[in-house]
Amino acid sequence: MIKELSVKTHSHSELVNITGLVQEAVSESKVTEGVCIVFVPHTTAGVTINENADPDVKSDILMKLDKLVDWNDRDYRHDEGNSAGHIKATMTGFSQSVIIQNGQLQLGTWQHIYFAEFDGPRSRRVKVKII
Amino acid sequence: MIKELSVKTHSHSELVNITGLVQEAVSESKVTEGVCIVFVPHTTAGVTINENADPDVKSDILMKLDKLVDWNDRDYRHDEGNSAGHIKATMTGFSQSVIIQNGQLQLGTWQHIYFAEFDGPRSRRVKVKII
Amino acid sequence: MIKELSVKTHSHSELVNITGLVQEAVSESKVTEGVCIVFVPHTTAGVTINENADPDVKSDILMKLDKLVDWNDRDYRHDEGNSAGHIKATMTGFSQSVIIQNGQLQLGTWQHIYFAEFDGPRSRRVKVKII
Repeated sequence: MIKELSVKTHSHSELVNITGLVQEAVSESKVTEGVCIVFVPHTTAGVTINENADPDVKSDILMKLDKLVDWNDRDYRHDEGNSAGHIKATMTGFSQSVIIQNGQLQLGTWQHIYFAEFDGPRSRRVKVKII
Repeated sequence: MIKELSVKTHSHSELVNITGLVQEAVSESKVTEGVCIVFVPHTTAGVTINENADPDVKSDILMKLDKLVDWNDRDYRHDEGNSAGHIKATMTGFSQSVIIQNGQLQLGTWQHIYFAEFDGPRSRRVKVKII
Repeated sequence: MIKELSVKTHSHSELVNITGLVQEAVSESKVTEGVCIVFVPHTTAGVTINENADPDVKSDILMKLDKLVDWNDRDYRHDEGNSAGHIKATMTGFSQSVIIQNGQLQLGTWQHIYFAEFDGPRSRRVKVKII
């Protein structure tokens, strides 16, 4: 079974907490022991895991990635102008694999799953597969 | 079943589209629903997903990684001189997990799978496992 | 079955070889064909794969990540002061998927699995799931 989630982003760069939606997909599947694959089918967005307690962590991650992969490098040749988004997506990754036990995602205490928008705002999709 | 692919690279840094080879391995396996793990068994090469439409995206990714992880940092101590390749491989990752439905890789419209060479040219291998 | 490993780190940044512990978990599981998911349940540590032969590769990876994601960027807002650790963890990744055949991790000749500490020293955990 594949569950497809919709994610609406509102900024150029944004980390959207999708932990609740992913856990919902796990619960619906009735799978109690396994692995959940969260896959982003885009090329200027990815998925990561990080801290949820302090929202400054999210903005620090986005700020630093922006400094490292600046938007306006004069050596970019891709004429859509969003090469930085493509590069950040490759650096962040397109999937996360999270272990399931007793029907629950086995995330650490401070971990949440984030959709990583690098060329928004857009309407995006996430595929969730439970095995 | 594990399928082993051979990839010949021709440049020092190169993204080689292996989507067709991976889909062939999926088709041969006769698995219609599952997950495909693409694993690179090297330490100066990885595997990523990105856009196939405009080849400038590939060259922009390689150009920016080269600027970030320059080849000649005088602080490198590894005497084979290819530390940059090792670092880029860790930043890109050694595996991709792609969902399979109806016997097809569930990639997004613009997504293709790329072998990421960071210390070529070389003869490389890729392992594909379907579960 | 999930096996939980304990990892003690001794430096602020450190790559700890956990290949032996992960192979032990695979052997205990008696699974001969499958995939091993190594998952780090922290937000300032990750897991990667890289070379074991020359220890300078490890220190070069850590050195370069430290230069890219400096510890004291005055634009960081997270008041625990460890934003660099969070960012490096996202760049490195929180899981690795390694294929199992004949009960053995199918790593390449030079590949080992490393717990990547980015805000140590600490007592850390790693979850290993075999499917």
